[in-house]
Amino acid sequence: MFNCAEIRVSEVTYDVDKIEELITDRTVAIMLVHVYGNVCNIEEIQRIADKYGLKVIYDAAHTFGVKYKDQGIGSFGSVSCFSFHATKVFNTVESVATCFKDADFGLELYRLKNFGIRVPERVDGMGANAKINEFCAAMGLCNLRHADEEIIKRKAVIERHMQHLSGVEGIQLSPEQKNVNPNYAYFPAVFDEKVFGASRNEVFDALVEQGIGARKYFYPLINTFDCFYGKYDPHETPIALHISKRVLTLPLYAELSLENMDIICEIILSYKSSYRIKEDENYEGRK
Amino acid sequence: MFNCAEIRVSEVTYDVDKIEELITDRTVAIMLVHVYGNVCNIEEIQRIADKYGLKVIYDAAHTFGVKYKDQGIGSFGSVSCFSFHATKVFNTVESVATCFKDADFGLELYRLKNFGIRVPERVDGMGANAKINEFCAAMGLCNLRHADEEIIKRKAVIERHMQHLSGVEGIQLSPEQKNVNPNYAYFPAVFDEKVFGASRNEVFDALVEQGIGARKYFYPLINTFDCFYGKYDPHETPIALHISKRVLTLPLYAELSLENMDIICEIILSYKSSYRIKEDENYEGRK
Repeated sequence: MFNCAEIRVSEVTYDVDKIEELITDRTVAIMLVHVYGNVCNIEEIQRIADKYGLKVIYDAAHTFGVKYKDQGIGSFGSVSCFSFHATKVFNTVESVATCFKDADFGLELYRLKNFGIRVPERVDGMGANAKINEFCAAMGLCNLRHADEEIIKRKAVIERHMQHLSGVEGIQLSPEQKNVNPNYAYFPAVFDEKVFGASRNEVFDALVEQGIGARKYFYPLINTFDCFYGKYDPHETPIALHISKRVLTLPLYAELSLENMDIICEIILSYKSSYRIKEDENYEGRK
Repeated sequence: MFNCAEIRVSEVTYDVDKIEELITDRTVAIMLVHVYGNVCNIEEIQRIADKYGLKVIYDAAHTFGVKYKDQGIGSFGSVSCFSFHATKVFNTVESVATCFKDADFGLELYRLKNFGIRVPERVDGMGANAKINEFCAAMGLCNLRHADEEIIKRKAVIERHMQHLSGVEGIQLSPEQKNVNPNYAYFPAVFDEKVFGASRNEVFDALVEQGIGARKYFYPLINTFDCFYGKYDPHETPIALHISKRVLTLPLYAELSLENMDIICEIILSYKSSYRIKEDENYEGRK
């Protein structure tokens, strides 16, 4: 059995020590997610990929605006895929973008998104309609101007949440990552029922009751989906399974008010017998 | 060899006499397009489908607002798929909708478009993100109010085009269909170079030169795509092949002015030695 306390810092992303044993002669790429905005172990992953001649594909949906060692996160790996869904730090209502290094591969992607059309009157590949529409593009151009500001405001929200929740026994928060400029996209909190005094689901329900939408993100774990029954063994990913049952991403957006954050944390901490909003000179409390 | 003049009225859509010979024991559905808004031979197709126990899937992308025998076009077949792309009579900028009769199938479609999620926390199918986004939905609600008006205005545009182009030798226009309330979505004109005096491509280029965007819709024919080379024989669909090389859909939108229509038709007819804008009491000519 895993316990929150046993999950090491390195495990906020993939355990890179497990990658090599999974590579077979049919492997062509290593595909990973910078989940919750936590950056994967980029250097070690690239070392393994180079050793085996593999591509690296990053799902960078959570990491728009993130930098690693002062370089944009999209500059790592062979491909990075961003999401601009309405729930993201930078959004176009809905759409995606892909960063790539190989120009030929870029052409392939272009065709895939545009009905397989290479140039007018020449269709030389199978494709679909995966283009961003004009409306979303316009929305993106508008929002792009505010992306940096949005990140700064989110940072303030996270700091307030941290003020309430860091150090609370039974709640594990994501540690800061070295060499990373974060985008403060998510605020995941992992609840250890036995230590904290309430399960993730109880906290979720208590928030819902007050009209507050936290997310069980990602629950259920993909390899436990009904449609994959018998196909995968979720116990082969024990940490992900453990976290998926205990994690909540708390409300987080630029305009979330201090007062509302305090209410959210108060509801959460009401389960904790030793609950006491921490006091410091910057904290004014609720009137 | 086919000649425009030989293409019978029934052939503005599929030649239903050819369907049965294509049915094998692996056939599960008949899939057809109401192309340019021309309604397929619904009754005969349903008769064949019932005889063989097949589903009928209509690509109704071009037929929003069309009625057949006073019934909405989406009420025929097992499924009808509409497109609300920006170029359509009714648009949401981008999105689609599907009409279906079987509630279980509807559930399946719901899951397919929504990540395979049946209900919160239960994912029992493979799916993707094919939802309409909120922005597009809002645009659709706004535009829906104007859909009938849009169709009426388009009718006027088509009537003006007809005034100029109907009866011109070497230009074939779509005939009216019996029992159909059309939506005036497209105005396809098929150019027979030998009779008309200019090819479709020459007319297209002449329009482009004046900044007028007609469309070679659909060209190239799908079974001639480079990516299908050697897989299909385009000569098995000789009429579609013939038309794809000769058809232009002319500019058509509600706000297209009479004057601009006259300019468009004048450019087209300038290729015709016997060119003369028809005169009638409603026609005021260009100043």
